[in-house]
Amino acid sequence: MRIGELSRSSGVPVPTIKYYLREGLLPAGELTSPNQAHYGPRHERRLRLIRALLDVGGLSLAGIGEVLEVMDDPEQPVHKVLGIAADGVTPAGREEEAGPDLEEARREVAELLLRRGWHADEWGPAAESLAGVLAALRRAGHGGYIGLLDAYADAAEPVARADLDYVQRRVAREDLVESVVVGTVLGEAMFGALRRLAHIDVSFRRFESPRNLSGPVDPEGSRAAGDGGGRGAGAAAGGAEPEPVG
Amino acid sequence: MRIGELSRSSGVPVPTIKYYLREGLLPAGELTSPNQAHYGPRHERRLRLIRALLDVGGLSLAGIGEVLEVMDDPEQPVHKVLGIAADGVTPAGREEEAGPDLEEARREVAELLLRRGWHADEWGPAAESLAGVLAALRRAGHGGYIGLLDAYADAAEPVARADLDYVQRRVAREDLVESVVVGTVLGEAMFGALRRLAHIDVSFRRFESPRNLSGPVDPEGSRAAGDGGGRGAGAAAGGAEPEPVG
Repeated sequence: MRIGELSRSSGVPVPTIKYYLREGLLPAGELTSPNQAHYGPRHERRLRLIRALLDVGGLSLAGIGEVLEVMDDPEQPVHKVLGIAADGVTPAGREEEAGPDLEEARREVAELLLRRGWHADEWGPAAESLAGVLAALRRAGHGGYIGLLDAYADAAEPVARADLDYVQRRVAREDLVESVVVGTVLGEAMFGALRRLAHIDVSFRRFESPRNLSGPVDPEGSRAAGDGGGRGAGAAAGGAEPEPVG
Repeated sequence: MRIGELSRSSGVPVPTIKYYLREGLLPAGELTSPNQAHYGPRHERRLRLIRALLDVGGLSLAGIGEVLEVMDDPEQPVHKVLGIAADGVTPAGREEEAGPDLEEARREVAELLLRRGWHADEWGPAAESLAGVLAALRRAGHGGYIGLLDAYADAAEPVARADLDYVQRRVAREDLVESVVVGTVLGEAMFGALRRLAHIDVSFRRFESPRNLSGPVDPEGSRAAGDGGGRGAGAAAGGAEPEPVG
C-alpha cells in the first residue's frame, strides 16, 4: 500500500509517518518508482506498536528507538530486550546520588532478593531502580512505606508468572520479542490503572460503606443503591468518583 | 535557615530552589529583612517531596504543581488528591480516540468491575485509563494480553489494601494527604521495579535452570549457588514457584 493508505489504516497522519521513517523507527518502504514507496503489514504492525508505546506506555521517541533497535537485532537475547523496554518505562533522571540512603536501600534490596529466593542480580538495573525508590521514600520522610515491600513483592510474583505465561505462547522470535515489549510496557500501565481502581474500591469500603443502614453489605445491593443516584448507600462521600453503575 | 542552608540540607542547588519558589511549588520563606528570607522544616519537607515526585515518580513540574495545589487546599477531599497524583503518573497524551476498540474496552472494564464487585465509577479516570490500555493492547495486536486482567486484578487488590493500611496510620490531614501522594506515585515505581525483578527470577527459573547437573535441588544450595555466581544448582526446573525461604 502507499503511504496514504498506511496513514488511513493506522490512523497516523502522513507527516508523522514520514517523521518516523526519517528517525528510523519505521523501516523504509519498498521503492516501486523513484519517489513512490510501498508499505506492507510489517509497517502497519510496527506503526501500531510505536503508537501503543508512545500513547499508553508513555515512552519517549528516543526510548522507543532504543527498544526497536534491540528488538530488530536477532543477536540480542530476549532478556536484554526486556531490560531496555523496562528502562524506557522508568522515568528519566532516576539517577540517584550515592550516599548513606542509597547504600542502605541497596542492602534492603539484597536482603529482599535473598529472603524471597529471587534469582536476580542485586546490581542490575531493576535492583538499582528499586533501591532508588526506597532511598527516595526514606528521603521524603516516608521510610515506613518500605514496610509494604513484601506485600508488593507477593503481588509482583504471580503477575510476573502470568506475563511469562503469555510470552511463552509465542514461538517466532519476532512475536516473542514484541510480546515482551508490549507486556512490559503496557502491563505496567494496566497494573497502574487496576491499582487505582482497587484504591477507589478499598477507600469506598473502609470510609463510606459502614453507613449502609438499609441492609446487609453486598455488592449487588450497594450497586443498586448507587444506580438510584442518591448519595445514600452507594455514594462516595466527598464524591470521589461517580458511582458504580450496574 | 537561609536559602544556602536549605540547599545544603536538601541537596537541591540554590537556583533550583529559587525556580521552585518562582513557580509557586515551594511556599515563600519568611522575610527577615528586605532581601533575606528564612526557611524552616516545612520548606525542607516540601523540597524533599518535590524531588521524590520528580526524580523517582517521573512527574512533570506542571504535574507536581497540580498535586501540591490540591494537597495544600484543605477543602479538597483526600480522594481528589489521590486522583490528581495518579493522573500525574499517567503518561500524557493517553487520550484515546473513540472507536469500536475503545467501546469494547469500556465494556470489558465495566464487566471487570461487576465481576470483582469493585465500587469504582466505570466512567472515572482510572476506568478510562484502563480502557485506554486495553484498546491499545488490542490495536497493537496483543488483545490476548487482556486475558491476564484478572491475574493482575488479583494482585492489585492486596496492594491497594496495603497502601490504604499505610495511609490510615496518619492522623493529621497534611500527613495523610502527603502519604497518599507518596504512596500513589512511589508505590507505582516500587511495584514496577519489583515486577521487573520477578520477571528476571521467573525467566531464570524457566529458561536457565534446567541444567541442574550437580545435585539435589534444595533452597539453601540454590541460594548459595546464586550467590557464588554459578548457574547450576538452582533451581526448580521450569519451576514457576519461587523457592521456599526459611
